[in-house]
Amino acid sequence: MISKAQVKEIRALATSKARAELQTFLVEGDKLCREWLERSEALPQIFAVPEWLERNQALLGKHPEANVFEATLEELKKIATQQHPNAAVLVAKFPILSVQLPTNEWCLALDRIQDPGNMGTIIRIADWFGVEHIVCSPGCVDVYNPKVVAAGMGGHLRVKMHHSPLPDFLKKCKMPVYAATLHGKTINQIEPQKAAVLIIGNESLGIQPELLSWVSEQVTIPKRGGAESLNAAVATGILLSMLVSG
Amino acid sequence: MISKAQVKEIRALATSKARAELQTFLVEGDKLCREWLERSEALPQIFAVPEWLERNQALLGKHPEANVFEATLEELKKIATQQHPNAAVLVAKFPILSVQLPTNEWCLALDRIQDPGNMGTIIRIADWFGVEHIVCSPGCVDVYNPKVVAAGMGGHLRVKMHHSPLPDFLKKCKMPVYAATLHGKTINQIEPQKAAVLIIGNESLGIQPELLSWVSEQVTIPKRGGAESLNAAVATGILLSMLVSG
Repeated sequence: MISKAQVKEIRALATSKARAELQTFLVEGDKLCREWLERSEALPQIFAVPEWLERNQALLGKHPEANVFEATLEELKKIATQQHPNAAVLVAKFPILSVQLPTNEWCLALDRIQDPGNMGTIIRIADWFGVEHIVCSPGCVDVYNPKVVAAGMGGHLRVKMHHSPLPDFLKKCKMPVYAATLHGKTINQIEPQKAAVLIIGNESLGIQPELLSWVSEQVTIPKRGGAESLNAAVATGILLSMLVSG
Repeated sequence: MISKAQVKEIRALATSKARAELQTFLVEGDKLCREWLERSEALPQIFAVPEWLERNQALLGKHPEANVFEATLEELKKIATQQHPNAAVLVAKFPILSVQLPTNEWCLALDRIQDPGNMGTIIRIADWFGVEHIVCSPGCVDVYNPKVVAAGMGGHLRVKMHHSPLPDFLKKCKMPVYAATLHGKTINQIEPQKAAVLIIGNESLGIQPELLSWVSEQVTIPKRGGAESLNAAVATGILLSMLVSG
């Protein structure tokens, strides 16, 4: 049973303001909730249908700190932001990050990425290629937006999300810095790297020109057809597949 | 001015049933509408704010067949399916396709791709890499769904969309056939091809096992991190970037 006050409290987490105040965010759906139970540290609240709680007793045993509430599917729909919360919704805490930005590990630097689907997909791509750090500029969509969490497919549990103006990060950075642009060096001509930064720019505006002074090489995916550009997440995937060394 | 009857008629095009009956679909927003005016053949109806019609007179001159209606932004919002129709919405006709499926040109074969964003992004990727044909299996999302058109970013005007059960297509196909799976040959070990088929499977179910008998080689993007899989469109982009020869 979920009380009206709880519904109001949880629904508020659809807004970035409430998430920032409470330092918590929503995780929705069977698969993601199980992944969070498996790998996350503190989970303040878990809402799920009885069968799901029954089936996941072992995982729930890892979280004595959690307040667990039985709910009906109808009640879950009231607190969920996604269309198909199927069986479970939980409230997770923001991870505590060291203030240290990465200096010698693969890192994506995102310049004002605004679409939640793109942001989540980029986190999932970083997670696939073992890129452990993402630095988000001011103006990026909130990485704990429920759509970002859904598209991230658990990547939030492994990829560390930093927030910093990109000039502050890049000027201290000692790794090669690549920038995805439309007029750079063909990506196939670049040697894969053990550690580097790849800057991905805003969906329609690209990378802020002032960042280019810190860039070692602009890189481009060769175009053979008529499209003007590639989706930001797709470009991230293609560039990382060629830049990250095994 | 858009009449109530027109609003009803145009809104119906949000459904695949009405689109199939009328053989028409919606194109929304300034940029896409200009691209359709530039490149499409028959455009039955164009709805736009007066300033847009004024600004695009030269393009409109290419379409004496079109019925052009002045509208307010408020009226455009009533007929649009996307959040920001900004300035123009038009009704386009399905292209007339030859029944001939490609036999010696690069081609994507999509097995039950269901997410409209993925489908549109895949069309945009094909358009970038100069892949001129996409064969959709039964069970794929309608390629003229407004979300697909929006994500396709004009790719519909250049990439030819076919519909066929994939076994019928594959058994006549004389090119190498690659299939994106999680346990294939590492993509970096495959030589780029002048002409081939790449099969991309459903977002959660992958490729139907019965298709594998027509596959020359299963291909895989090497994984270095913790993610279980990559998004279908991102995987398509990475694989085509390595498989299509320049």
